[in-house]
Amino acid sequence: MATGKINVSVENIFPLIKKFLYSDHEIFLRELISNATDATLKLKHLTSIGEAKGVEYGEPQIEVKVDKKGKKIHVIDQGIGMTEEEVKKYINELAFSGAEEFLNKYEDGAKDTGIIGHFGLGFYSSFMVAEKVEIITKSFKDEPAVHWSCDGSPKFTIKKAKKEDRGTEIILHVADDSKEFLEEGRITGLLQKYNKFMPIPIKFGTKTETLPKPEGAKEEDPAPTKEVDNIINNPNPAWTKQPSDLKDEDYKSFYRELYPMQFEEPLFNIHLNVDYPFNLTGILYFPKLTNDLNIQKDRIQLYQNQVFVTDNVEGIVPEFLTMLRGVIDSPDIPLNVSRSYLQADGAVKKISSYITRKVADKLNSLFKNNREDFEKKWNDIKIVIEYGMLSEDKFFEKAEKFALYPTVDGNYFTFEELTEKIKDSQTDKDEKMVVLYASDKEAQHSYIEAAKAKGYEVLLLDSPIIGHLMQKLETSKDKISFARVDADHLDNLIKKDDTTISKLSDEEKEKLKTSLEEIIEDKKYTVQLEAMDSNASPFIITEPEFMRRMKEMQQTGGGMFGMGNMPEMYNLIVNTNHELVGEILNTKTAKKRERLINQSIDLARLSKGLLKGEELTEFIKRSYEMVK
Amino acid sequence: MATGKINVSVENIFPLIKKFLYSDHEIFLRELISNATDATLKLKHLTSIGEAKGVEYGEPQIEVKVDKKGKKIHVIDQGIGMTEEEVKKYINELAFSGAEEFLNKYEDGAKDTGIIGHFGLGFYSSFMVAEKVEIITKSFKDEPAVHWSCDGSPKFTIKKAKKEDRGTEIILHVADDSKEFLEEGRITGLLQKYNKFMPIPIKFGTKTETLPKPEGAKEEDPAPTKEVDNIINNPNPAWTKQPSDLKDEDYKSFYRELYPMQFEEPLFNIHLNVDYPFNLTGILYFPKLTNDLNIQKDRIQLYQNQVFVTDNVEGIVPEFLTMLRGVIDSPDIPLNVSRSYLQADGAVKKISSYITRKVADKLNSLFKNNREDFEKKWNDIKIVIEYGMLSEDKFFEKAEKFALYPTVDGNYFTFEELTEKIKDSQTDKDEKMVVLYASDKEAQHSYIEAAKAKGYEVLLLDSPIIGHLMQKLETSKDKISFARVDADHLDNLIKKDDTTISKLSDEEKEKLKTSLEEIIEDKKYTVQLEAMDSNASPFIITEPEFMRRMKEMQQTGGGMFGMGNMPEMYNLIVNTNHELVGEILNTKTAKKRERLINQSIDLARLSKGLLKGEELTEFIKRSYEMVK
Repeated sequence: MATGKINVSVENIFPLIKKFLYSDHEIFLRELISNATDATLKLKHLTSIGEAKGVEYGEPQIEVKVDKKGKKIHVIDQGIGMTEEEVKKYINELAFSGAEEFLNKYEDGAKDTGIIGHFGLGFYSSFMVAEKVEIITKSFKDEPAVHWSCDGSPKFTIKKAKKEDRGTEIILHVADDSKEFLEEGRITGLLQKYNKFMPIPIKFGTKTETLPKPEGAKEEDPAPTKEVDNIINNPNPAWTKQPSDLKDEDYKSFYRELYPMQFEEPLFNIHLNVDYPFNLTGILYFPKLTNDLNIQKDRIQLYQNQVFVTDNVEGIVPEFLTMLRGVIDSPDIPLNVSRSYLQADGAVKKISSYITRKVADKLNSLFKNNREDFEKKWNDIKIVIEYGMLSEDKFFEKAEKFALYPTVDGNYFTFEELTEKIKDSQTDKDEKMVVLYASDKEAQHSYIEAAKAKGYEVLLLDSPIIGHLMQKLETSKDKISFARVDADHLDNLIKKDDTTISKLSDEEKEKLKTSLEEIIEDKKYTVQLEAMDSNASPFIITEPEFMRRMKEMQQTGGGMFGMGNMPEMYNLIVNTNHELVGEILNTKTAKKRERLINQSIDLARLSKGLLKGEELTEFIKRSYEMVK
Repeated sequence: MATGKINVSVENIFPLIKKFLYSDHEIFLRELISNATDATLKLKHLTSIGEAKGVEYGEPQIEVKVDKKGKKIHVIDQGIGMTEEEVKKYINELAFSGAEEFLNKYEDGAKDTGIIGHFGLGFYSSFMVAEKVEIITKSFKDEPAVHWSCDGSPKFTIKKAKKEDRGTEIILHVADDSKEFLEEGRITGLLQKYNKFMPIPIKFGTKTETLPKPEGAKEEDPAPTKEVDNIINNPNPAWTKQPSDLKDEDYKSFYRELYPMQFEEPLFNIHLNVDYPFNLTGILYFPKLTNDLNIQKDRIQLYQNQVFVTDNVEGIVPEFLTMLRGVIDSPDIPLNVSRSYLQADGAVKKISSYITRKVADKLNSLFKNNREDFEKKWNDIKIVIEYGMLSEDKFFEKAEKFALYPTVDGNYFTFEELTEKIKDSQTDKDEKMVVLYASDKEAQHSYIEAAKAKGYEVLLLDSPIIGHLMQKLETSKDKISFARVDADHLDNLIKKDDTTISKLSDEEKEKLKTSLEEIIEDKKYTVQLEAMDSNASPFIITEPEFMRRMKEMQQTGGGMFGMGNMPEMYNLIVNTNHELVGEILNTKTAKKRERLINQSIDLARLSKGLLKGEELTEFIKRSYEMVK
């Protein structure tokens, strides 16, 4: 038996770094700016604890310059710099994680300074886009500057440099296949994407600023201007501040900063701030969701120490909250791992349930503190809440307190208030409480009116997933069921003991039913005679709840398989106590009876939205004749 | 100045491999099976060119075994194996790309054998999930077997082994944080995902097969069974075969193999097969798209040499074709690069336009060879074709030949046929050809009937993006415009020189208009008197084309900004030649006139689908009264 150590040669590793280090080559700029930020924050930390004597921290910047003609990109910082010793240690040794060592040395103090340190191999990502990389660096210590250069072969040269001021300059000689990064617009785009909220000001070029006119200037004199640094980032974004230091307007203006293309203001926000058992800050916004085409585009952004990581927060944020917008910043979310790993990760699970809890608490306090305002917003937030109630049992429990059930008349009840309100009138003879609802105030108008005339409350439930939620409520609550107002004749929907007496004898009923069935050719209508109030409609078409709900649920995923293809089935309810029905029965001529029945059924179908196309055109033609 | 070489220590690299090599840890199994396949195909190649004397290739398999109790996963092949020398060379040297060297040596011949060789560091991905990895291998050459073992420290031991049969066995001692991979279901899932179509049979466990009963067996005797290898893959998937060797049924059964959860058959398929200037094979299917919830789930799958890579083909397949299903297999698509890089890559651009061309050619030949069948399928494929016409100019040109414009009566015209058909009747006095269309046969029934009564053709255009396509057709063709049948009175939509004489004098018209405007309170209706055929409707409500189309286009992205929020505006067209209108004018009592006008306008609104809610309920109530 022999033993040995697996060998690795830098010649073999280098091409891999170029190809595999990050799947996205554009990451190089994020990495270099992260390093520059690191170097600056390290200096800040050292000066703050007195370990960098005689050094003035000042107001350091990071500068990015593009030299399109010379095919170069420069990234320049005024940070800690490196001595020759340090270059040899940190640069010449591949994958020597400098940030980690620094963090271990200064421990908790260093953590607070927000040093990034998560992107160990960062500097080498330069070679993904550059054929040659130079480093010119001067340490804050009193040592000569160093000039390091490498063409990725991976041989390097190192020599003294003339640089006088503290800090590091990285020069990338951009390779031919990466020319895109010499375009100013491309770099601006990358800085906007990854570095918009990094903690050190980043300069990219200059811009012209208009100054106030000097006193005594004439009207026609042009205002003076000056060139100023073009700072592309906001080093102190709202989420890094304390909630107590922020006003409502600050949250709104940060929203505009995050999503410049959003013209609609957010409904409200939730400031996240926790440091145990994990570290997480952020601000989530509830947007107006209705008809918004940017839903998929403007998503929650994930940062680590103010560096943008991704806008795919699947697995980190519970699915029902991915419709929200905003920022989450946490160093405790593992990167570069699979989604399935993320979902199994303990820390991530805790983060996800923390976010759910915070959102539920916020909704609860909004509801309690200003119910009127909460009711106004309900229509815009209900999808999120209802989806959350369906998918997360903990949220379902918490939402009990603030989930609202609006009526067609614009009243909003909690479930408890609703049951209190309807328990006397809408409990049937088997002690089951029947919640009546409509999905469309216009289309179901006549049915709603009929229910209201009986003193019933009718909810307006129109979310696409409401069927699923009703199903869940019916199974989790006792003796409750939902029925749409047009699901059946009201006396059948809420069965009471009292019965209305029919004006027709059994014989007459039989005769009526036969003549109706003779005339109605369409087999999808089942005739059903009912003794109703004589003021109720003579004819009503109803659509049984179960079938309809299952069909609708299948469309949004769920319900019973195969229901989507079932034919539509309706009942034609005939009010045997209505005057018109009596008239039909007593009409002697078959032709006249047929005309009466057809016109009546057409009106019933019109009321249910079933009279369409040619039949409607014919109906209208006939009606114009009758008008004349 | 000093020079040197960047140094890398394996201790620093190893943790990176564990963390960064692939973002998805599950990839390890794909990598090991790829290596095993490689080793088998190499042996096949060597035997076929006579370089492996005395070796029988046989019918080699790859076996995967999970030992849950022992926390081990085994991957065993019967391939080329390794000598001690080769283990030292290929395993002990990290990132030594064995496949590449092999490919260089045997050049084109080796390419034909389909050796994968794209996943250089594959073996090391084992360390993402294993705390210790063993290799037991025996070369096809007459040399002793070798047992290599490494606990990832990265120290290894190497010794002789007793293995008698040719090939390599990899043993992973699964780490605690990767226990999920010891679940049989998880491994089955991975094999299904990545290896379903790899070229060497892969065995995972056994299954019970029922054998035919022996002759003379009694009815009640149970059929004999036997345990057979459970082969999880199809080593010869349809796309690797020649189109001439495949029947229609073969394509359909491959579709079921790809998407076992799809119960609907595909409409047709397109076999891709090209080897210059890039290598690409594959089969694309046009699915029935209507109301299909699996659109997002069952997507086109990208393979490289029969190894599954991803089902995100964005950037490789033109966007309008991502609604298709099927397989693309190409070694020429760069992996691990950003989407923006992909879109700029020359080879990928060529692949994308090749696919577009092949799809257009196939559609054209389907249209030419069996127009009737193509027309039947049009409704299911139109979205793809219309979206392609909008987004790819080359496709727009090609689609000229096969894009269809159906009429409300179920005739299908090409654009050329359509213009030929309507040029005489539907060209207005300014020589502009007006294409009339409806978006809903039922809802626009009365308008369609009116247009047909004038001898006009009415198209049925109901795709959500059709507004955009009409816009494109109007600008790319000369003197053509589209108008929905309810956009205006027909004589205004297609203006001819002949005018109908009004029965009313100017004075009478003025009087009529005044009484109408007094009664119509709703300001969204503009009254417009027209001298029309006395048999046409007395009242018609129209909705101007431009406004409506812009509003609709904005909903699907595009159109004119801000149109979505504009109020709805309608015209109330009054036929001054209709008997009823004359009657209204001559009615003396104001009350009776008002009733006539209101009922007439209600009927016009009903015809346009604008009579809803309370107004409809009231209308129906009034109508029941009139029936009696």
